[in-house]
Amino acid sequence: MADVAPVLTEAMAAEVNALIEANVGTTLVADVNNYFTVFSGYLVFFMQAGFAMLCAGSVRSKNAKNIILLNILDACFGCCAWYLTGFAFAFGDPVPFEHCGGLEGPALLECEAGDPIPGLSASQAFIGNRFFAQSNLPRSSFWLWFFQFTFAATGATIVSGAVAERCKFEAYMLYELMIVMFVYPVVAHWMWSTCGWLSPWRSEATAAKQSYLYFAGSGVYDFAGDAAVHMVGGVASLAAAWVLGPRIGRFDAAGNPVDMPGHNASLTLLGVFLLWFGWYGFNPGSAVAFSLTGSENYSKVAIAVAINTTVGAAAGTICTLFIAMAYQYFTLGVVVWDLIIAGNGALAGLVSITGPCGFVNTWAAFIIGGIGGFVYFVASKVNLNVLKIDDPLDAIAVHAGCGVWGLLAGGAFSAPGMVTDVYGTMPDGSQRPYGFIMGGNGSVLAANSMAILVVFGWTLAIMTPFFILLKKVGLFRVSPEVEAQGLDVSHHGEFSAL
Amino acid sequence: MADVAPVLTEAMAAEVNALIEANVGTTLVADVNNYFTVFSGYLVFFMQAGFAMLCAGSVRSKNAKNIILLNILDACFGCCAWYLTGFAFAFGDPVPFEHCGGLEGPALLECEAGDPIPGLSASQAFIGNRFFAQSNLPRSSFWLWFFQFTFAATGATIVSGAVAERCKFEAYMLYELMIVMFVYPVVAHWMWSTCGWLSPWRSEATAAKQSYLYFAGSGVYDFAGDAAVHMVGGVASLAAAWVLGPRIGRFDAAGNPVDMPGHNASLTLLGVFLLWFGWYGFNPGSAVAFSLTGSENYSKVAIAVAINTTVGAAAGTICTLFIAMAYQYFTLGVVVWDLIIAGNGALAGLVSITGPCGFVNTWAAFIIGGIGGFVYFVASKVNLNVLKIDDPLDAIAVHAGCGVWGLLAGGAFSAPGMVTDVYGTMPDGSQRPYGFIMGGNGSVLAANSMAILVVFGWTLAIMTPFFILLKKVGLFRVSPEVEAQGLDVSHHGEFSAL
Amino acid sequence: MADVAPVLTEAMAAEVNALIEANVGTTLVADVNNYFTVFSGYLVFFMQAGFAMLCAGSVRSKNAKNIILLNILDACFGCCAWYLTGFAFAFGDPVPFEHCGGLEGPALLECEAGDPIPGLSASQAFIGNRFFAQSNLPRSSFWLWFFQFTFAATGATIVSGAVAERCKFEAYMLYELMIVMFVYPVVAHWMWSTCGWLSPWRSEATAAKQSYLYFAGSGVYDFAGDAAVHMVGGVASLAAAWVLGPRIGRFDAAGNPVDMPGHNASLTLLGVFLLWFGWYGFNPGSAVAFSLTGSENYSKVAIAVAINTTVGAAAGTICTLFIAMAYQYFTLGVVVWDLIIAGNGALAGLVSITGPCGFVNTWAAFIIGGIGGFVYFVASKVNLNVLKIDDPLDAIAVHAGCGVWGLLAGGAFSAPGMVTDVYGTMPDGSQRPYGFIMGGNGSVLAANSMAILVVFGWTLAIMTPFFILLKKVGLFRVSPEVEAQGLDVSHHGEFSAL
Repeated sequence: MADVAPVLTEAMAAEVNALIEANVGTTLVADVNNYFTVFSGYLVFFMQAGFAMLCAGSVRSKNAKNIILLNILDACFGCCAWYLTGFAFAFGDPVPFEHCGGLEGPALLECEAGDPIPGLSASQAFIGNRFFAQSNLPRSSFWLWFFQFTFAATGATIVSGAVAERCKFEAYMLYELMIVMFVYPVVAHWMWSTCGWLSPWRSEATAAKQSYLYFAGSGVYDFAGDAAVHMVGGVASLAAAWVLGPRIGRFDAAGNPVDMPGHNASLTLLGVFLLWFGWYGFNPGSAVAFSLTGSENYSKVAIAVAINTTVGAAAGTICTLFIAMAYQYFTLGVVVWDLIIAGNGALAGLVSITGPCGFVNTWAAFIIGGIGGFVYFVASKVNLNVLKIDDPLDAIAVHAGCGVWGLLAGGAFSAPGMVTDVYGTMPDGSQRPYGFIMGGNGSVLAANSMAILVVFGWTLAIMTPFFILLKKVGLFRVSPEVEAQGLDVSHHGEFSAL
Repeated sequence: MADVAPVLTEAMAAEVNALIEANVGTTLVADVNNYFTVFSGYLVFFMQAGFAMLCAGSVRSKNAKNIILLNILDACFGCCAWYLTGFAFAFGDPVPFEHCGGLEGPALLECEAGDPIPGLSASQAFIGNRFFAQSNLPRSSFWLWFFQFTFAATGATIVSGAVAERCKFEAYMLYELMIVMFVYPVVAHWMWSTCGWLSPWRSEATAAKQSYLYFAGSGVYDFAGDAAVHMVGGVASLAAAWVLGPRIGRFDAAGNPVDMPGHNASLTLLGVFLLWFGWYGFNPGSAVAFSLTGSENYSKVAIAVAINTTVGAAAGTICTLFIAMAYQYFTLGVVVWDLIIAGNGALAGLVSITGPCGFVNTWAAFIIGGIGGFVYFVASKVNLNVLKIDDPLDAIAVHAGCGVWGLLAGGAFSAPGMVTDVYGTMPDGSQRPYGFIMGGNGSVLAANSMAILVVFGWTLAIMTPFFILLKKVGLFRVSPEVEAQGLDVSHHGEFSAL
Repeated sequence: MADVAPVLTEAMAAEVNALIEANVGTTLVADVNNYFTVFSGYLVFFMQAGFAMLCAGSVRSKNAKNIILLNILDACFGCCAWYLTGFAFAFGDPVPFEHCGGLEGPALLECEAGDPIPGLSASQAFIGNRFFAQSNLPRSSFWLWFFQFTFAATGATIVSGAVAERCKFEAYMLYELMIVMFVYPVVAHWMWSTCGWLSPWRSEATAAKQSYLYFAGSGVYDFAGDAAVHMVGGVASLAAAWVLGPRIGRFDAAGNPVDMPGHNASLTLLGVFLLWFGWYGFNPGSAVAFSLTGSENYSKVAIAVAINTTVGAAAGTICTLFIAMAYQYFTLGVVVWDLIIAGNGALAGLVSITGPCGFVNTWAAFIIGGIGGFVYFVASKVNLNVLKIDDPLDAIAVHAGCGVWGLLAGGAFSAPGMVTDVYGTMPDGSQRPYGFIMGGNGSVLAANSMAILVVFGWTLAIMTPFFILLKKVGLFRVSPEVEAQGLDVSHHGEFSAL
């Protein structure tokens, strides 16, 4: 073609391109991207099955039915909570969230750059305020509602592991509504909405009521949710396990931990495999698009994320397995390759790479996942031996510990080209900040560190009094008799759960 | 672009659009839609795994291998049966089934509107008659063959729960061939083919041999198969469980039911999770397309269906859990949150929303799923305590009971805009009928009620004599000795199934 | 449109088409194809979960944790090994692998047809030599890296079944690195790269250093990997199980096999279902595209493969079930429908159809799957009773036995039109060779037979000395005490694995 003299004038060619864009760009491209995101949401939903099996295998058989019920209700109450207020608080912006670097968004945002858009208020940086119960939510945004619902439910389910074997079922239902209706959505709003005060998705139009565009010059780089999902769940787990206290017999009279192994390692590891599989929805799906007209490189984001996710999990598993082996070898003199710890190592690697997965090179994903395994192992030991907190599923170490590490790693390893692929450039066309190890400055580290602080502060400040209140009114913990007997017999019918 | 004077004439622009349509519309759009449907079929196939685990956990361990084998053979015999006659009876029309509102279909249908198409006979309204063993089936229709195969296998597998722990393996193989070769395909033909007498997919061309276009003015609105799949499976379950009689010991001498709990609640709930996940193929996949050139709104159908499916399941779970709790509290004075009943409640919500999921708003999906939980609970009690039928998996209550409710709900809650998105308009361009609660008339309720009647009639009329015949010749039920000992030891080898 | 006189000149229309191609063909089409392949890779990865459950259920409970750990480490070490050298040896060609009949490839290849491309050496036919540790690997090829990683990990995991219950964990880690870093990638290179000496994907440009274009005139037709994946895994299993020797007690004093049933048939069959589901990534995903501009028929390849995969599995299950029943009936006089054997029959059918699935008609898939069941059953008996090899999971019979059969079947049943859809035509435009039963000649059978020979030779020649060496230095097998006690208690922590 290139060798033939063109017969279309430039103006004609431009018009043809516009027709192609109108015919394909605004229908087929949007359709495949939206359905890609919804399909990814199915995989994220599938993580509920993984978490249920992980938990069921890791508790004693007398409490298996209880914890499976908590897990299935995470999805069910989570759905109601997300419908009523969750989505509204998280994404109820005057400017609807659109594809990153998006299809309609930029046109809208750019043409109004600098002017506060109609309906924008200063509170918008803190919390969304429309689309309660989907009212006035356009059907073209239903894909976002669904995908983000699966995230909210996943974040909420983390706590079920930390309160296992001693929490009242009624209390858990209240907790579930609390976190999905309010606590999680607000954090998601800060990080991911077009208006959130920490969000890198802001524009001059949506940030018009604040004195800055991006917090610390970059905003928080949290691709798939180390702050919003894993840290919120992990920190809420910390508050819950701390207020609830350890299971009877978890520490001996001298305060030393006593092993309380779960009852079925096959189920636990089935859970790990299902979670790993579901993570391919969680992380690559967070691209919320795999094809953008006008941005050749965007198409590579989701695929690089899939590789980083795999690599992070693999490195986390291997490092944790060897660290735990070495620890046992040097303390007890025996070589043990602990399957359950390896499984938690996989989750540690996955959580660690969740935040930075869109911005880092494959080699960095190995490092991040491997260090994630170390972070998990140390956090777990500190939690149990120093803080004396009983967390049956190690949810705090895996989700809060590795969530913190993932955010820090994003500040260190974010590569400039990949940052551009995801977020585009600064409004003036210059490069966005990137990781200090990659030659960038400390902006991303500063913003991500702020995210760590505020998620700890916000989640503890709300959930700790909430759990203490539950405890005061006698709603939080089952009686010692029920705990000794197991929750299943007395509370969940006669069917056994091997 | 809009501000620049166009340089292409209108005729040129039209031709450019035609070229785009020819290059993209008839290849890429068809390809993504077809593969979307096939991929959804994978998820539907995965429901076999879910049903196998649901059943395995819900029977006593001495019969677990037996029922898993029934489940895997549902897929295998179902595949042979669908190949030989199933697809032909269901979709062997002179006008091939194409995308809803389709890509090639409308052009074909519209241009011949009113004229009987070549090869059309009056019997075509009742049963398909070509493509046996895929002969002459164009490869461009293979996507439909595969997707609909997974539906047929799913419908057939429902019965395995109702006959659990006492049915001869050989009888089940015969049943499987019967239902997938003939009983199910005919119902699918009525509801979903381009010629079926109850189908809303008919056109003036395909309905030319009958005196009406749409039955009761609307045809049956059954998006993903409450009539064809769930009711056929549920009603066949009723016939099977009734003819087969209860398990030994299921009712005491006074005729009161005696609990026979399954052996592994973790497997049962794993099954529920896998089924829920697979339902994201079953319901959204039934859109059989997620992008249509020339129909902006169609792209939103599958995504709205995904949300309705989730909401229906959530509402069903929660309502059933609370209804069962209240029932136990008022009859026995104890508070029990029954996990197995909650799991069945999830399935009840899913079955209830399966039929109307493409036509109803999110708030309606909450109501439909919630009432579905109530319908399941009452149907289960009536089945066991009034009809004295032993249905180990509650297949009749879940699939027939909630299938009926789903069809009625479609008559009540179908929203006009969503009906148009799915089915288009009447031939004269006017609005199709919609739910009476939404301001419509009783057409949909009438047509859907007829679907309920004819599925009951057809399935009972064929399957009841078939099962009675099996019983008469001694092929249906194992001996009391084998039943007491369990079917696994004597029939399926030595390996245990915990 | 066709009836209106066109207003665009032919030259204008050609230019418009080029603009459409440039706007859509090189972005959206590539994007959907690449993400389709990556998504298929997720399903292939999910097969790790299936294999883990299959193995866990099929061993005695005292070794379940050990074998699950082997399975999760297959993915983890496999990832590292693939990163370091695996991908480089397999696909490190000067001409990057692109879509079959590809988007960019053909343009590149055709315009240089006959001239050796820059960087091509004679060794390229044997092994790849670039992209170690992803260095210089363009991000546009990351989809291939990921998808092929999942294949490498799947092939490697097969051996875990053959060495179950007696292999040292440390030895397995070394084996894993060996096979994914070197043994498997070389075979994959031969079969599937653009330069491999047996590959049907060669062109005159990439074959310039050899005296022939396609081996035996056709190259090996191995759609999804009977040679590269299943035979490599199965033959390595043979070497491993043979060198390792049988489990204590597997043969009595007279050398007759003694049954050693696994501990949990539900888990085993869950594994079969998960594997079957994952196979929908493995086989259809191997099309690596479902839409190609300029090739209407390619869009049908992946869908036909999905049907053939289903049909092969169904036929394998049914035939194996009936063959095993008949065998027991004629030898022991009892009718047993063995669930575990049926599950292996499903896998036998799946392996058998894996190689030829892209080239054969549906009816042929029934025959191939069914005979595959027979091949598995006979191979298993020969293995156990004649060769006296103890293969706890029957990995040799399923993967090597049915892998051989699948390659032979490809030589017999490949249909001409489908071969053209997958591979295109010969450079001169004539039909490529196809199966002798379909009227073709013996070319494909000859090439595929060579593949069988060289995979046996290559894998045995490297793995047998490797395993013997491990044995000599005392690294391969656990002590009899540990074997009697089970590997879990001593090596993998205290948690039980029911």
